[in-house]
Order: sequence, then structure tokens, then C-alpha cells
Amino acid sequence: MEAGPKLLIDERRVKENIRKMARKCDIPGLSFRPHFKTHRSIEVARWFRETGVEKITVPSLSMASYFLEDEWKEQTVALPVDPASLEKARELAFHGDLRFIVSEGSPIPRIDQGMLEEVEVMIELETGDARSGLDPEAPERIDELVEELDKSERLSFVGFLTHSGNSYQACGREEILAVHDRAMELIRPLKDRYASHRPIISVGDTPTARWMEDMKDVDEIRPGNFVFYDLMQERIGSCSMEEIALCLSCPVVSKKAEEQELVLHGGALHFSLDRLHMEDGTPFFGKPVRWEGRGWGVPYEGSFIKRLSQEHGVVKASEELYREKEVGDRLAVLPVHSCLCGDGMPHYELLDGTRIGKFRG
Amino acid sequence: MEAGPKLLIDERRVKENIRKMARKCDIPGLSFRPHFKTHRSIEVARWFRETGVEKITVPSLSMASYFLEDEWKEQTVALPVDPASLEKARELAFHGDLRFIVSEGSPIPRIDQGMLEEVEVMIELETGDARSGLDPEAPERIDELVEELDKSERLSFVGFLTHSGNSYQACGREEILAVHDRAMELIRPLKDRYASHRPIISVGDTPTARWMEDMKDVDEIRPGNFVFYDLMQERIGSCSMEEIALCLSCPVVSKKAEEQELVLHGGALHFSLDRLHMEDGTPFFGKPVRWEGRGWGVPYEGSFIKRLSQEHGVVKASEELYREKEVGDRLAVLPVHSCLCGDGMPHYELLDGTRIGKFRG
Repeated sequence: MEAGPKLLIDERRVKENIRKMARKCDIPGLSFRPHFKTHRSIEVARWFRETGVEKITVPSLSMASYFLEDEWKEQTVALPVDPASLEKARELAFHGDLRFIVSEGSPIPRIDQGMLEEVEVMIELETGDARSGLDPEAPERIDELVEELDKSERLSFVGFLTHSGNSYQACGREEILAVHDRAMELIRPLKDRYASHRPIISVGDTPTARWMEDMKDVDEIRPGNFVFYDLMQERIGSCSMEEIALCLSCPVVSKKAEEQELVLHGGALHFSLDRLHMEDGTPFFGKPVRWEGRGWGVPYEGSFIKRLSQEHGVVKASEELYREKEVGDRLAVLPVHSCLCGDGMPHYELLDGTRIGKFRG
Repeated sequence: MEAGPKLLIDERRVKENIRKMARKCDIPGLSFRPHFKTHRSIEVARWFRETGVEKITVPSLSMASYFLEDEWKEQTVALPVDPASLEKARELAFHGDLRFIVSEGSPIPRIDQGMLEEVEVMIELETGDARSGLDPEAPERIDELVEELDKSERLSFVGFLTHSGNSYQACGREEILAVHDRAMELIRPLKDRYASHRPIISVGDTPTARWMEDMKDVDEIRPGNFVFYDLMQERIGSCSMEEIALCLSCPVVSKKAEEQELVLHGGALHFSLDRLHMEDGTPFFGKPVRWEGRGWGVPYEGSFIKRLSQEHGVVKASEELYREKEVGDRLAVLPVHSCLCGDGMPHYELLDGTRIGKFRG
């Protein structure tokens, strides 16, 4: 086969990332329900199982179906229910212990009628991420939704779910914790307002999970990215370079002497166009790392992916990197955002060359 | 099944786009060798075959292999040869009439030794795109490469190939033609310099192909995106809104009344993060279109995708659009860049619901 770009994962780092996060979340009363949207792999999921994880979060019904095949019964599908997919939702809820979420505009009676048996439902809140969810400061709408759920035959309101995606704009422990604190300030009054329902409070993102100290009022945590981490998480301060457990290994297909650049087979399809910026505002899409023994090490100083087209990546290389690599060699590159990496690629490869499968839409 | 996001293509528009481009390129002495990186589908490829297309361009060996299965024998693989993939290259060259490209740093003797029989090779030139290719204004390096190719046993130098990707920064006919004229100014002296080789001149991008009038000195043209077009091409001036032949149909999963926004199941994984900017600098990732009869029409005024996360898209909606759509409805959205759309998605869907297959890496 064509060598082409490969999605490499470092099994030791992945297992260590899982172990550390599971330990951090091993607190009485706190439920660890990791989000499997980042790795999307039954094999990686089994490494979670080894640490005792039983409950998970998935981003869609089709991924719920994929993980159900490997006996992951307890899943939260973290996208508001699509009333046009009720048949599938009903079928999956029959086979597993699925928890659904509803949000602003969710047609509760229609969803209720679509179910055959009782299913647990969480209400999504928007606590600063500006993506989706109800405004916790406008509880009248939440009242209406809770009332509708109470009136329903098969939908059982169990709590509130939020994703503080705005923590991705934070930097460092203090800012991240401030984002979480603000979210909790918004949610706490709801815990009181609906006290008779004893609502579960479920929070989600990796930066918060990494730094959160006060688990008070949080019942469940759903980080996902931590399994691999990436340059964005390193920038935010959620991980070190040494914890990043996924990279793209790309063939060098050309060298440009004048520009001191390497051209890679590995482009926007493999890395995604997610970017970070250097201090002077220059965007970059990945950072080449040294290869040491049987795995990758730290980035080459002053080297970065400056440009991506569909299949090509152009690396601005340091003198050292440029000298080290010839056309036909491979270069390992840390991605900016591991959740978006290689969606179209069929598998991961471990450092010993073993291929492991992943979900394909 | 979960409804989820769907990649819709309008067969009539696709066929019309193919027909128009094929007609434009039907000029004595000019070879039309469309790039199949955009559609990546044997079924769509057959629509090209119906117009008489026999020679194609592909972005990788694995895609060459996919199209070879449907008897596309004449393929140019438009990525510099990876010396680590020579076994695959040799095998494919045995089954088809493959043309390879070499660029700065390509190890000619190694590639030569890797082949079993004569293969045609083009030299890649960099004429303003700043991606890869040799500098036409430094012909000494090109001399060396040509000399190496001449000395090789199995590699036959047949011409020069360039991709004026910088036309994507142009706007309108004049600017696009200026990009092409500049590229040709750089290439023409090489045509003379290597006159004894009678080099083929192959140019590539959709904007240039759309507006090019003077085919003088061009022997082959390799546009790809025109098969579907997209908002970026419309912005550049290569197509009209009515010619865009691909859209993403996404379930509306939430409505945010206060913000007048729709939340879609359809995110960065489906659209890619390629973006355009409005006059005031606001980025957007797609434009919702009306649904008319059995297909889509023009965009809703003042509506756009303002934000993408992995699986979610947030649409800033006009009053009209917000009023029209309920949770559970679908919204058709034109993508910014069709080449990067839905790489992980398994198939396209025609307007009558027929599914057609596509390449998966």
C-alpha cells in the first residue's frame, strides 16, 4: 500500500492519560462519563473499560450504535434529540441504557410519543459557550420544559448538562477555573429551583476537568479530548507536550531549499484546518516532533506547518529539521485539534505498527 | 438509521458543470484531464466518462487504485512521488497508464530503480502558489532534474505541471486571468529551453479554467472543484450560486429564540473549518439555502453558519429562516469548500434519495 499519512497513537501515553483522569474523577458522588467523540474507537474504549469506566458520552446516535456493539450500555447522546431520528433513538434505547438531551425548541410531546419505554433526559444549558442550550438566567423557559417533561409519559427528567466550550479561549489554571466557576454560579440556583427533582449536574470539557478542584455541586463529568490531547490543550494549559498521545506521521515528498521548507503528504483532510497563532499572529496547523527510539519526543524548535491544502502540508523547518529529513522520510507532526484529526482515515496505528479500528460515519 | 447530516448532490447541476467545462476545454491540441480529488466517486466519474473524458488527475496512489478498479487507465498522480511508496506506484503503473510528478528533492535514481517499466514523469513548477514545485526562474535546478531524468532508464520526462492555487486569492475574471498570465510568463521560457523534449504544459485550478481564453502554450488542463463548486468559487467569481451542486442537509436540533439562531447537527467534521469573511470581517462557514420543489435554491438573505464545533453548527438566521424552520426539520447549507466536505461521510445522496458511493481513504 501507499505509505501516505498515518494516524499514530502512543498506547502508553493514552493509557496514562486515561488513568490520570479516571483517578482525578474518582471522588465519592462524582460520576466519570468520558466523551468518546475524540477517539471514536472500540479498541481505545476497551482501555477505558480496564480502568473501570462503564458510562460514556457519545456525539450522535450512529456512534451510540457503534459502541453498543461492544456492550457499552450506558451512554449519554450529547446532541439534542433530532425528532426525525426517533425510530433509531427508540431502537437504541431498547438495547441500551441511553440518556438523551433536550434543548431550546425540543418538541417534548413528539419525542415522548416516539419512545416505547422510559428514557432519561437531561436539559442542556448554555453557560458561556454560545453553542446551544437554554439560558440558566431565564428559568421560565426551563420551567416550561421541566413541566413538559413531567407531564410526558416516558421521558424522565434527570438533570442538567452543560459544555463549557468557552474554556478553550482560556489560558492557564486561573482562567480555566474562572470559566468553570462562572458556569457553576449559573447552574447552582437551578439545582435549588428544581430541588424536588434532585437534578444531576453534568459538566464537560477537558480543560475544566483537568484543573477543577471543587467538585461541589458537580455530579458528573464528561471530558473527551484528554485521551489524546493536542497543541490547543497544551496552549490552554491542560496538558504538557509529553502527554500528547496522537500525531500524524507524514511522508516528506519535496524539499524547498530556498525557503527551507518541507512538503508533506498530509493536508487539511488529515489535520483539519484548526489553527493556533504564534505571538506575531502567524497561524500554524501543527508542530513537527523529533523521533526518539520507538516514539515521538518534543517539537523541533522554530518549525511548524504554515499551510495546508487538501493533501499537502508545508512545513517551515528549522535548519536542523531541514537537514535531518530527506524526501522519502517520514515526519511526525502534533495536530492542533485531535478531535478533528483524520476523520476520513480508516484506522490508528500503534507505535509497534499494530492497526486499530475506529468509527466511520 | 439516524437521519444526521447528509451530503446532497444535484445530479443535473453536476452533469451541467461537467458538460460546460468539457466543452470549454474541447479545443484542438488541449487535453482535458479533470482532477477527481473533489468528488472522489466512481459514480460521479462515470458522468465524466459520458462526456468522453478518459484521462484524469488524482491526488494520491490510494485514489489512483480506487479509480483503476473502474478502468480509469490514464491517471496523473498529482503529488510528488513518495520514494517510500514505490512498490505501490510500480504495481499501479503496471495496471494503468500512470503519470507521476517529481519536484524539488525527488531522488530520481531511487525512483527510477523502483520502476519495472517506462513511466511518464512531469516536473512540478511553483508559479505563485507557494506550495510545492521548482522555481521556474531558477532553471539551473530544473536543468539538473531534466538531466537526471534523461539519464534514467525508465523515467520519461514529458513536461511541466503547475497548480495556480494563488488564483483562490483572486477575485473576478481580470484578477484570475492575471494569475494565469503570470504563471504562463514564468513557464514559457522553459518551453523554449527544453524545446527538444517538446514538454507538455499542464495547468490546473478551477478559477483559471473557468476564465482562461488564451489556450496558447497550454497543452493540458486539470481543474477539479468545478464539478461541485462552492461558496469560495462563487466569491472568486468562478461560478454562480445556481451552479453549486453540493450541499449539506442538516437536521435542526435546537432553536435559540433570543439569538435568532438555529443549532444544526452538522459541524466541523462535515463542513471543514474552511471559512470566508463578510465585509465587516465576520467569518462564516456556510450559507443556508431555500428548498424549492425537488432541490435547493438561493441562499436566505442575511443567514450564515457563524460557528462550528465537532458535530454542531450554529446558524445566525434571518427572521424568515428562523420562522420557517422547526426542530426536526432539515436545512440545506452550501459549503465554503466542497473539496474538504464530508471526508468521513460514506456516500452522497442524490435529490431523489439514491445513495452513491465515494472513496474512503
